[in-house]
Amino acid sequence: MPKKSLDPQTILFPLPAVMVSCQKRGEGEKPNIITLSWVGVVCSEPPMLGIGVRKNRFSWDLIAHSKGFVVNIPTGDLLRATDFCGMRSGKDVDKFAEAELTPVTCAETGAPLIKECPVNLECELKEMVELGSHTLFIGQIVATHIDSEYMDEKGRPDVDKMNLFCYCPAAHEYRAIGDVLAVYGKA
Amino acid sequence: MPKKSLDPQTILFPLPAVMVSCQKRGEGEKPNIITLSWVGVVCSEPPMLGIGVRKNRFSWDLIAHSKGFVVNIPTGDLLRATDFCGMRSGKDVDKFAEAELTPVTCAETGAPLIKECPVNLECELKEMVELGSHTLFIGQIVATHIDSEYMDEKGRPDVDKMNLFCYCPAAHEYRAIGDVLAVYGKA
Repeated sequence: MPKKSLDPQTILFPLPAVMVSCQKRGEGEKPNIITLSWVGVVCSEPPMLGIGVRKNRFSWDLIAHSKGFVVNIPTGDLLRATDFCGMRSGKDVDKFAEAELTPVTCAETGAPLIKECPVNLECELKEMVELGSHTLFIGQIVATHIDSEYMDEKGRPDVDKMNLFCYCPAAHEYRAIGDVLAVYGKA
Repeated sequence: MPKKSLDPQTILFPLPAVMVSCQKRGEGEKPNIITLSWVGVVCSEPPMLGIGVRKNRFSWDLIAHSKGFVVNIPTGDLLRATDFCGMRSGKDVDKFAEAELTPVTCAETGAPLIKECPVNLECELKEMVELGSHTLFIGQIVATHIDSEYMDEKGRPDVDKMNLFCYCPAAHEYRAIGDVLAVYGKA
Protein backbone atom coordinates (compact mmCIF):
# COMPACT_ATOMS: atom_id res chain seq x y z
CA MET A 1 0.00 0.00 0.00
CA PRO A 2 2.13 2.89 -1.22
CA LYS A 3 1.84 6.28 0.47
CA LYS A 4 1.93 9.35 -1.75
CA SER A 5 3.29 12.59 -0.40
CA LEU A 6 1.16 15.56 -1.39
CA ASP A 7 1.87 19.22 -0.80
CA PRO A 8 1.22 20.07 2.84
CA GLN A 9 -2.53 20.64 3.12
CA THR A 10 -5.31 20.63 5.68
CA ILE A 11 -6.95 17.29 4.87
CA LEU A 12 -8.49 16.76 8.30
CA PHE A 13 -11.94 15.26 8.50
CA PRO A 14 -14.59 15.23 9.56
CA LEU A 15 -14.76 18.79 10.88
CA PRO A 16 -17.65 20.65 12.43
CA ALA A 17 -19.27 23.42 10.39
CA VAL A 18 -20.57 26.02 12.81
CA MET A 19 -22.04 29.49 12.62
CA VAL A 20 -20.13 31.96 14.77
CA SER A 21 -22.09 35.05 15.72
CA CYS A 22 -20.63 38.34 16.91
CA GLN A 23 -21.36 42.02 17.21
CA LYS A 24 -19.46 45.19 17.99
CA ARG A 25 -20.47 46.81 21.21
CA GLY A 26 -22.36 50.08 21.06
CA GLU A 27 -25.63 51.47 19.80
CA GLY A 28 -26.60 50.86 16.21
CA GLU A 29 -24.16 47.99 15.72
CA LYS A 30 -25.55 44.99 13.89
CA PRO A 31 -24.93 41.32 14.65
CA ASN A 32 -23.10 39.23 12.08
CA ILE A 33 -22.54 35.53 11.34
CA ILE A 34 -19.49 33.78 9.91
CA THR A 35 -19.47 30.07 9.09
CA LEU A 36 -16.30 28.29 10.13
CA SER A 37 -14.81 24.82 10.05
CA TRP A 38 -11.49 25.92 11.49
CA VAL A 39 -12.94 25.41 14.98
CA GLY A 40 -12.19 23.01 17.80
CA VAL A 41 -11.99 22.38 21.49
CA VAL A 42 -8.59 23.39 22.87
CA CYS A 43 -8.95 22.93 26.64
CA SER A 44 -11.27 21.17 29.11
CA GLU A 45 -10.68 23.11 32.34
CA PRO A 46 -11.55 25.83 31.77
CA PRO A 47 -13.61 24.83 28.72
CA MET A 48 -12.17 26.68 25.73
CA LEU A 49 -12.65 26.76 21.98
CA GLY A 50 -10.32 27.96 19.24
CA ILE A 51 -11.59 29.49 16.02
CA GLY A 52 -9.36 30.35 13.08
CA VAL A 53 -10.50 33.50 11.26
CA ARG A 54 -8.89 34.99 8.16
CA LYS A 55 -7.72 38.51 8.84
CA ASN A 56 -9.66 40.16 6.04
CA ARG A 57 -13.00 38.74 7.19
CA PHE A 58 -15.60 41.21 8.40
CA SER A 59 -16.08 39.29 11.64
CA TRP A 60 -12.38 39.48 12.57
CA ASP A 61 -12.78 43.07 13.73
CA LEU A 62 -16.08 42.43 15.49
CA ILE A 63 -14.57 39.63 17.59
CA ALA A 64 -11.28 41.41 18.28
CA HIS A 65 -13.07 44.52 19.54
CA SER A 66 -16.06 43.08 21.37
CA LYS A 67 -13.95 40.28 22.90
CA GLY A 68 -16.87 37.88 22.65
CA PHE A 69 -18.38 35.42 20.19
CA VAL A 70 -20.87 32.56 20.13
CA VAL A 71 -20.29 29.19 18.47
CA ASN A 72 -23.68 27.96 17.27
CA ILE A 73 -24.18 24.35 16.19
CA PRO A 74 -26.61 24.05 13.28
CA THR A 75 -29.15 21.30 12.70
CA GLY A 76 -29.51 19.70 9.27
CA ASP A 77 -32.40 22.08 8.56
CA LEU A 78 -29.92 24.94 8.73
CA LEU A 79 -27.44 23.56 6.18
CA ARG A 80 -28.40 26.11 3.53
CA ALA A 81 -28.16 28.97 6.00
CA THR A 82 -24.80 27.66 7.21
CA ASP A 83 -23.42 27.49 3.70
CA PHE A 84 -24.83 30.92 2.84
CA CYS A 85 -23.18 32.53 5.87
CA GLY A 86 -19.83 31.12 4.74
CA MET A 87 -20.14 32.46 1.21
CA ARG A 88 -21.20 36.06 1.78
CA SER A 89 -19.67 38.94 3.71
CA GLY A 90 -21.30 40.92 6.48
CA LYS A 91 -19.92 43.99 4.73
CA ASP A 92 -22.55 43.51 2.04
CA VAL A 93 -25.51 41.74 3.60
CA ASP A 94 -27.38 41.41 6.87
CA LYS A 95 -26.92 37.67 7.24
CA PHE A 96 -29.36 37.29 10.12
CA ALA A 97 -32.09 38.85 7.97
CA GLU A 98 -31.16 37.08 4.72
CA ALA A 99 -30.91 33.65 6.37
CA GLU A 100 -34.02 34.28 8.49
CA LEU A 101 -32.19 33.72 11.75
CA THR A 102 -32.89 35.41 15.07
CA PRO A 103 -30.21 37.07 17.20
CA VAL A 104 -30.61 36.93 20.97
CA THR A 105 -28.24 38.93 23.14
CA CYS A 106 -26.29 36.79 25.62
CA ALA A 107 -26.13 37.88 29.22
CA GLU A 108 -22.48 37.12 29.94
CA THR A 109 -20.75 38.66 26.95
CA GLY A 110 -23.32 40.77 25.11
CA ALA A 111 -22.61 38.70 21.99
CA PRO A 112 -25.61 37.53 19.93
CA LEU A 113 -26.55 33.85 19.80
CA ILE A 114 -28.55 32.29 16.98
CA LYS A 115 -31.87 31.24 18.44
CA GLU A 116 -32.56 28.59 15.77
CA CYS A 117 -29.40 26.59 16.63
CA PRO A 118 -29.94 23.97 19.35
CA VAL A 119 -26.60 24.54 21.08
CA ASN A 120 -24.87 27.87 21.58
CA LEU A 121 -21.47 28.14 23.22
CA GLU A 122 -20.96 31.66 24.50
CA CYS A 123 -17.29 32.56 24.57
CA GLU A 124 -15.20 35.30 26.10
CA LEU A 125 -12.06 36.03 24.09
CA LYS A 126 -8.93 35.13 26.05
CA GLU A 127 -6.10 34.99 23.52
CA MET A 128 -5.32 35.87 19.94
CA VAL A 129 -2.55 33.89 18.27
CA GLU A 130 -1.32 35.22 14.92
CA LEU A 131 -0.48 32.28 12.66
CA GLY A 132 -0.31 33.53 9.05
CA SER A 133 -3.46 33.83 6.95
CA HIS A 134 -5.54 33.21 10.06
CA THR A 135 -5.73 34.47 13.62
CA LEU A 136 -6.60 31.84 16.20
CA PHE A 137 -9.11 33.37 18.60
CA ILE A 138 -9.18 31.36 21.81
CA GLY A 139 -12.37 31.82 23.80
CA GLN A 140 -13.39 30.53 27.16
CA ILE A 141 -16.91 29.08 27.18
CA VAL A 142 -18.72 31.11 29.83
CA ALA A 143 -22.20 29.73 29.18
CA THR A 144 -23.70 26.81 27.28
CA HIS A 145 -27.20 27.37 25.97
CA ILE A 146 -29.29 24.47 24.75
CA ASP A 147 -32.89 24.14 23.59
CA SER A 148 -34.72 21.89 25.99
CA GLU A 149 -36.38 20.07 23.08
CA TYR A 150 -32.94 18.79 22.05
CA MET A 151 -32.15 17.27 25.44
CA ASP A 152 -32.84 13.67 26.36
CA GLU A 153 -34.58 12.60 29.55
CA LYS A 154 -31.26 12.64 31.42
CA GLY A 155 -30.62 16.25 30.45
CA ARG A 156 -27.91 15.43 27.92
CA PRO A 157 -27.85 16.70 24.34
CA ASP A 158 -29.79 14.33 22.08
CA VAL A 159 -27.65 14.10 18.96
CA ASP A 160 -30.23 12.07 17.01
CA LYS A 161 -32.73 14.89 17.21
CA MET A 162 -30.23 17.42 15.83
CA ASN A 163 -29.76 15.83 12.44
CA LEU A 164 -26.14 17.00 12.48
CA PHE A 165 -23.79 17.38 9.57
CA CYS A 166 -20.05 17.82 9.16
CA TYR A 167 -17.67 19.31 6.63
CA CYS A 168 -14.90 17.47 4.81
CA PRO A 169 -12.24 19.85 3.50
CA ALA A 170 -10.35 18.87 0.33
CA ALA A 171 -13.50 17.02 -0.78
CA HIS A 172 -15.51 20.27 -0.12
CA GLU A 173 -18.47 18.21 1.04
CA TYR A 174 -21.06 18.55 3.74
CA ARG A 175 -21.99 15.09 4.98
CA ALA A 176 -24.62 13.70 7.30
CA ILE A 177 -23.75 12.32 10.72
CA GLY A 178 -25.10 8.82 10.99
CA ASP A 179 -25.64 6.08 13.51
CA VAL A 180 -23.85 5.47 16.78
CA LEU A 181 -21.03 2.99 16.20
CA ALA A 182 -19.74 2.76 19.75
CA VAL A 183 -19.50 4.57 23.04
CA TYR A 184 -16.19 6.02 24.22
CA GLY A 185 -14.22 3.42 26.15
CA LYS A 186 -16.32 0.55 24.82
CA ALA A 187 -15.53 0.27 21.13
CA MET B 1 -38.60 27.11 22.41
CA PRO B 2 -36.93 27.89 25.72
CA LYS B 3 -33.14 27.85 26.00
CA LYS B 4 -31.63 26.31 29.10
CA SER B 5 -28.30 27.55 30.38
CA LEU B 6 -26.03 24.71 31.46
CA ASP B 7 -22.68 24.96 33.13
CA PRO B 8 -20.03 26.00 30.61
CA GLN B 9 -19.02 22.83 28.79
CA THR B 10 -17.45 21.68 25.55
CA ILE B 11 -20.56 20.48 23.70
CA LEU B 12 -19.14 20.90 20.21
CA PHE B 13 -19.96 18.30 17.61
CA PRO B 14 -19.18 16.53 15.49
CA LEU B 15 -15.45 16.40 16.18
CA PRO B 16 -12.75 14.32 14.52
CA ALA B 17 -11.24 11.44 16.49
CA VAL B 18 -7.67 11.05 15.36
CA MET B 19 -4.64 9.08 16.44
CA VAL B 20 -1.63 11.31 17.05
CA SER B 21 1.71 9.53 16.85
CA CYS B 22 4.96 10.78 18.31
CA GLN B 23 8.36 9.63 19.52
CA LYS B 24 11.27 11.08 21.45
CA ARG B 25 14.41 11.49 19.41
CA GLY B 26 17.32 9.21 20.14
CA GLU B 27 18.22 5.55 20.04
CA GLY B 28 15.99 3.08 21.85
CA GLU B 29 13.03 5.47 22.04
CA LYS B 30 9.67 3.91 21.21
CA PRO B 31 6.84 5.47 19.23
CA ASN B 32 3.55 6.18 20.98
CA ILE B 33 -0.03 6.97 20.01
CA ILE B 34 -2.58 9.21 21.71
CA THR B 35 -6.18 9.48 20.54
CA LEU B 36 -7.51 13.03 20.52
CA SER B 37 -10.68 14.88 19.65
CA TRP B 38 -9.35 18.23 20.82
CA VAL B 39 -7.87 18.75 17.35
CA GLY B 40 -8.61 21.17 14.54
CA VAL B 41 -7.31 23.25 11.69
CA VAL B 42 -6.11 26.64 12.89
CA CYS B 43 -4.57 28.23 9.78
CA SER B 44 -4.61 27.74 5.99
CA GLU B 45 -1.38 29.45 4.88
CA PRO B 46 0.78 27.95 6.17
CA PRO B 47 -1.41 24.90 6.85
CA MET B 48 -1.49 24.37 10.62
CA LEU B 49 -3.24 22.13 13.12
CA GLY B 50 -3.83 22.60 16.81
CA ILE B 51 -4.01 19.68 19.23
CA GLY B 52 -4.96 20.02 22.88
CA VAL B 53 -3.06 17.62 25.13
CA ARG B 54 -3.52 17.27 28.87
CA LYS B 55 -0.27 17.97 30.69
CA ASN B 56 -0.07 14.66 32.51
CA ARG B 57 -0.38 12.60 29.34
CA PHE B 58 2.64 10.50 28.36
CA SER B 59 2.66 11.99 24.85
CA TRP B 60 2.93 15.58 26.14
CA ASP B 61 6.61 15.15 26.83
CA LEU B 62 7.29 13.29 23.61
CA ILE B 63 5.80 16.08 21.50
CA ALA B 64 7.32 18.91 23.52
CA HIS B 65 10.81 17.44 23.22
CA SER B 66 10.79 16.01 19.70
CA LYS B 67 8.94 19.04 18.31
CA GLY B 68 7.07 16.85 15.88
CA PHE B 69 3.89 14.80 15.69
CA VAL B 70 1.66 13.15 13.10
CA VAL B 71 -2.13 13.45 12.96
CA ASN B 72 -3.43 10.17 11.53
CA ILE B 73 -7.02 9.86 10.31
CA PRO B 74 -8.48 6.43 11.04
CA THR B 75 -10.88 4.47 8.86
CA GLY B 76 -13.92 2.78 10.35
CA ASP B 77 -11.95 -0.46 10.57
CA LEU B 78 -9.67 1.25 13.08
CA LEU B 79 -12.38 2.40 15.48
CA ARG B 80 -11.44 -0.16 18.15
CA ALA B 81 -7.76 0.73 17.86
CA THR B 82 -8.64 4.43 18.05
CA ASP B 83 -10.68 3.96 21.19
CA PHE B 84 -8.04 1.73 22.75
CA CYS B 85 -5.30 4.32 22.18
CA GLY B 86 -7.42 6.90 23.98
CA MET B 87 -8.02 4.70 27.02
CA ARG B 88 -4.53 3.42 27.82
CA SER B 89 -1.25 5.15 28.59
CA GLY B 90 2.01 4.72 26.72
CA LYS B 91 3.61 4.54 30.17
CA ASP B 92 2.13 1.06 30.54
CA VAL B 93 1.70 -0.41 27.07
CA ASP B 94 3.26 -0.39 23.62
CA LYS B 95 0.19 0.84 21.80
CA PHE B 96 1.56 0.20 18.31
CA ALA B 97 2.11 -3.44 19.24
CA GLU B 98 -1.14 -3.89 21.19
CA ALA B 99 -3.28 -2.30 18.47
CA GLU B 100 -1.36 -4.03 15.69
CA LEU B 101 -0.38 -0.81 14.00
CA THR B 102 2.81 -0.10 12.08
CA PRO B 103 5.02 2.92 12.70
CA VAL B 104 6.84 4.40 9.71
CA THR B 105 9.39 7.14 10.33
CA CYS B 106 8.60 10.38 8.48
CA ALA B 107 11.35 12.05 6.51
CA GLU B 108 10.67 15.67 7.45
CA THR B 109 10.30 15.44 11.21
CA GLY B 110 11.46 11.98 12.26
CA ALA B 111 8.04 11.45 13.85
CA PRO B 112 6.32 8.10 13.27
CA LEU B 113 3.19 7.89 11.12
CA ILE B 114 0.64 5.09 11.38
CA LYS B 115 0.81 3.12 8.16
CA GLU B 116 -2.73 1.71 8.45
CA CYS B 117 -4.33 5.20 8.46
CA PRO B 118 -5.15 6.50 4.97
CA VAL B 119 -4.15 10.11 5.68
CA ASN B 120 -1.21 11.24 7.80
CA LEU B 121 -0.52 14.90 8.46
CA GLU B 122 3.10 15.33 9.48
CA CYS B 123 3.52 18.38 11.71
CA GLU B 124 6.43 20.40 12.97
CA LEU B 125 5.71 21.99 16.36
CA LYS B 126 5.58 25.79 16.08
CA GLU B 127 3.92 27.03 19.26
CA MET B 128 2.79 25.82 22.65
CA VAL B 129 -0.04 27.74 24.30
CA GLU B 130 -0.70 26.97 27.96
CA LEU B 131 -4.45 27.11 28.59
CA GLY B 132 -5.21 25.31 31.86
CA SER B 133 -5.68 21.54 31.93
CA HIS B 134 -4.44 21.36 28.35
CA THR B 135 -1.55 22.68 26.31
CA LEU B 136 -2.41 23.63 22.76
CA PHE B 137 0.36 22.36 20.51
CA ILE B 138 0.27 24.21 17.19
CA GLY B 139 1.99 22.35 14.39
CA GLN B 140 2.67 23.32 10.81
CA ILE B 141 1.81 20.56 8.34
CA VAL B 142 5.07 19.93 6.51
CA ALA B 143 3.94 16.86 4.57
CA THR B 144 0.62 15.18 3.78
CA HIS B 145 0.80 11.44 3.24
CA ILE B 146 -2.08 9.58 1.66
CA ASP B 147 -2.57 5.98 0.52
CA SER B 148 -3.12 5.97 -3.21
CA GLU B 149 -5.95 3.48 -2.84
CA TYR B 150 -7.93 6.16 -0.98
CA MET B 151 -7.61 8.75 -3.73
CA ASP B 152 -10.16 9.23 -6.51
CA GLU B 153 -9.29 9.48 -10.20
CA LYS B 154 -8.68 13.22 -9.81
CA GLY B 155 -6.13 12.66 -7.08
CA ARG B 156 -8.38 13.92 -4.30
CA PRO B 157 -9.09 12.01 -1.08
CA ASP B 158 -12.06 9.69 -1.56
CA VAL B 159 -14.06 10.05 1.63
CA ASP B 160 -16.51 7.26 0.77
CA LYS B 161 -13.72 4.71 0.72
CA MET B 162 -12.51 5.74 4.18
CA ASN B 163 -15.62 4.79 6.10
CA LEU B 164 -14.99 7.72 8.45
CA PHE B 165 -16.36 8.28 11.91
CA CYS B 166 -16.58 11.20 14.29
CA TYR B 167 -16.82 11.77 18.02
CA CYS B 168 -19.61 13.58 19.83
CA PRO B 169 -18.51 14.81 23.27
CA ALA B 170 -21.13 15.10 26.02
CA ALA B 171 -22.95 12.18 24.35
CA HIS B 172 -19.63 10.21 24.42
CA GLU B 173 -20.50 8.59 21.09
CA TYR B 174 -18.57 7.60 18.03
CA ARG B 175 -20.82 8.00 15.01
CA ALA B 176 -20.58 7.11 11.34
CA ILE B 177 -20.13 9.75 8.66
CA GLY B 178 -22.86 9.33 6.10
CA ASP B 179 -23.90 10.58 2.69
CA VAL B 180 -22.96 13.80 0.97
CA LEU B 181 -25.67 16.39 1.62
CA ALA B 182 -24.23 19.24 -0.41
CA VAL B 183 -21.04 20.71 -1.79
CA TYR B 184 -19.56 23.85 -0.26
CA GLY B 185 -21.01 26.94 -1.90
CA LYS B 186 -23.94 25.02 -3.39
CA ALA B 187 -26.09 23.96 -0.46
